Amino acid sequence: MSYIHISDIKKEVGRNVSIRGWVHRKRSNGNIIFIVIRDHTGILQIAISNSNTDKDTWNRSENVSLESSIEVIGIVKEDKRSPTGYELKVSQLKIINNSEPYPITEYQSTELLLDKRHLWLRSTKMIPIMKARSYMFRYAREYLDKLGFFEITPPLITASAGESGSDMFVVDYFGRDVYLTESSQLYSEAMIYSLEKVYSFAPSFRAEKSRTIKHLTEFWHLEPEMAYYNMEETMCLIENLISHISKSLVKNNCEMLNSMNVNIDVLSSIHPPFKRITYEKSIQILNDKGKELKWGDDFGVEEEHFLTEDEDKPLFVVNWPRELKPFYMPINPEDERTVICADLQAPKGHGEIVGASERIWKVEEAMKRFKEIEKIKNIKFNMDNYSWYLDLIRYGGIPHSGFGMGMERLIKWFLNLDHIRDTIPFPRTINRISP
Amino acid sequence: MSYIHISDIKKEVGRNVSIRGWVHRKRSNGNIIFIVIRDHTGILQIAISNSNTDKDTWNRSENVSLESSIEVIGIVKEDKRSPTGYELKVSQLKIINNSEPYPITEYQSTELLLDKRHLWLRSTKMIPIMKARSYMFRYAREYLDKLGFFEITPPLITASAGESGSDMFVVDYFGRDVYLTESSQLYSEAMIYSLEKVYSFAPSFRAEKSRTIKHLTEFWHLEPEMAYYNMEETMCLIENLISHISKSLVKNNCEMLNSMNVNIDVLSSIHPPFKRITYEKSIQILNDKGKELKWGDDFGVEEEHFLTEDEDKPLFVVNWPRELKPFYMPINPEDERTVICADLQAPKGHGEIVGASERIWKVEEAMKRFKEIEKIKNIKFNMDNYSWYLDLIRYGGIPHSGFGMGMERLIKWFLNLDHIRDTIPFPRTINRISP
Repeated sequence: MSYIHISDIKKEVGRNVSIRGWVHRKRSNGNIIFIVIRDHTGILQIAISNSNTDKDTWNRSENVSLESSIEVIGIVKEDKRSPTGYELKVSQLKIINNSEPYPITEYQSTELLLDKRHLWLRSTKMIPIMKARSYMFRYAREYLDKLGFFEITPPLITASAGESGSDMFVVDYFGRDVYLTESSQLYSEAMIYSLEKVYSFAPSFRAEKSRTIKHLTEFWHLEPEMAYYNMEETMCLIENLISHISKSLVKNNCEMLNSMNVNIDVLSSIHPPFKRITYEKSIQILNDKGKELKWGDDFGVEEEHFLTEDEDKPLFVVNWPRELKPFYMPINPEDERTVICADLQAPKGHGEIVGASERIWKVEEAMKRFKEIEKIKNIKFNMDNYSWYLDLIRYGGIPHSGFGMGMERLIKWFLNLDHIRDTIPFPRTINRISP
Repeated sequence: MSYIHISDIKKEVGRNVSIRGWVHRKRSNGNIIFIVIRDHTGILQIAISNSNTDKDTWNRSENVSLESSIEVIGIVKEDKRSPTGYELKVSQLKIINNSEPYPITEYQSTELLLDKRHLWLRSTKMIPIMKARSYMFRYAREYLDKLGFFEITPPLITASAGESGSDMFVVDYFGRDVYLTESSQLYSEAMIYSLEKVYSFAPSFRAEKSRTIKHLTEFWHLEPEMAYYNMEETMCLIENLISHISKSLVKNNCEMLNSMNVNIDVLSSIHPPFKRITYEKSIQILNDKGKELKWGDDFGVEEEHFLTEDEDKPLFVVNWPRELKPFYMPINPEDERTVICADLQAPKGHGEIVGASERIWKVEEAMKRFKEIEKIKNIKFNMDNYSWYLDLIRYGGIPHSGFGMGMERLIKWFLNLDHIRDTIPFPRTINRISP
């Protein structure tokens, strides 16, 4: 006999079916034992009646503990009193593996749930989040693949630093200190000379001591890079990519979204264009709300919140001060105080989800920016680390643009989650490295 | 005017088109300059005639250096004398960025090509390999996604050890020594309890001091894990997955394969079933070929070669001695000297591409295996590192199986490459950490 999933139960009314899953809840009124069984597609109430089943099944049902893995056979009935409208009248129950007393009970501290993350992932709260994550990864790739992008894989262990060199984890590489990448952008850029439009989709690592609801030390970073694209084309790509992901979720995974109380109307409304405002304008908006920002100030959690609290769609903040941005961003000829870049802020303070820019593609311009940043920050770049990167433009550089999207931030916003750690199966934060 | 790719040239005969790319080759006979222009889709000879073009274009064409990025406009002609059968009669040539003298010339040492990897990736040798890699990743995901698998993302920084704890890179995590994962299997296993069939597809790291043509310190590892699957079902899945990837390449990317001189007939013939032989039988085959192996010996490069030199399809070697395999593999009730597992050997000595097994799903069996391995290897497991993993089966464990496939090994075999470093854009080996 083959097994069905709980989500298919409505097609099987009146039929005898087999189901495998875990004991999610259990109660008894003496003559009938009610078990809620869970598989990855949902939950279902099953009823074991003392009078209508064999003695072995009754005994096993009496003894089976919460979270035990079981196999049941029975007839599907519609039943309005059951939590999902269906019930299985069990003729046979087999215990695959009886569970020891389960350590997660109804009310638990956040810390315990993180300690027992490997078990908490089975909860009806986490299952749909992890599915949504998987689908969002799939839809993101699907969109880029259709546009002719090639996925490329960057090295995560690297001898050279990404943006600034600080905040990177050090790895002992056969006795030599090397780093875990904080961004694969430079490697993505290397690949446009052979594949034109590429993306890397891999973890990035940040050894930041931030303890916020938006920071992970290890996060999944989608980093597309496009030969010949300018800033406006890049922003259009970002809008369409995000809109494709949200539309695909709504189209294909509506029931799952409902089970998480995601506002489908809001998700459906994320279509292009997204508003574009300059950094200068955003400073003005924030100051009108009572902040006291001046040119050159960066945004923190509070600024991001005030800027986007009334938005339903994300907001591009473009043309940031050149002193705030990395060496590879070109100076904006229309406003030389700024570079040609765009940060995408998620609505309702969910934070920056995308950082995008055109890239410098002439060596002399890059050198000018290196020197400028050395002066502003009073640092010295180790140019040995950048010689391979400068080679890319030294030998036939071309105009190009790219961006980095933090997938966990996008998931947090889409699913309206309180904390970024719930977007990823095994979160890594400053004080959390296991399980 | 919009640009076309070189691969589309045959549809444009007689038309005026624009093309962007790099100066791949250049020669002149005084009155005509011939340039071979390269984009990611191919190469094309373009001809600039002194008599039929403006002075600026002629001067630019005379001065343009190898690997400069250029833009050309011209009329497409069929021309049997040109390398690809087509030629562009140029009316305009614009230099996007003139290249400095290119450091890669015709005959170069392997070391120089690795030092200049970021440039060598643009070569007509590397472009199709990187495309094939991208497609193989895509086809692998596509196959598993269709079967209802969910992609999950494991943490790459981990406090606990995978199989043995040796050969792992150490990361300084805010002052604490932690590790780069050598396999995400245990995390994939954790996810079957919520998602049933999952795969992780991420880098694994091995701090092995191997200097072979089959070893990288950082490689992409596809690690599916399936609730309720047994060994035979798992082997069928592996066969079908590999066959799907090869068939899709042949179906969709034939021209690309031809450009790499891949034997399409061989690639087309990789269909299920693959031969299955026991470890015991493989020892006998090897000894018949003059080796002197005894029960319990592992295979090295030479054994892998002798075992598969006459095969065109991969070969499953099943039921390995329990002392050779990790704690999570269950003892085979039909031959208690062995565990229920299968290694897949690629033909022609390309090496082990898949390691698969059923997984222990009862705590007492796992503990027995831990103790057995401690005794054989004279080691002591730190059971704190495994407590979370044992929780998975302690609380409702279920039968399951899984495998790990090294994507670079698969690519090396499919494309019949000499060295594994050419399967990945930026290879990491014991003495190679940049670019």
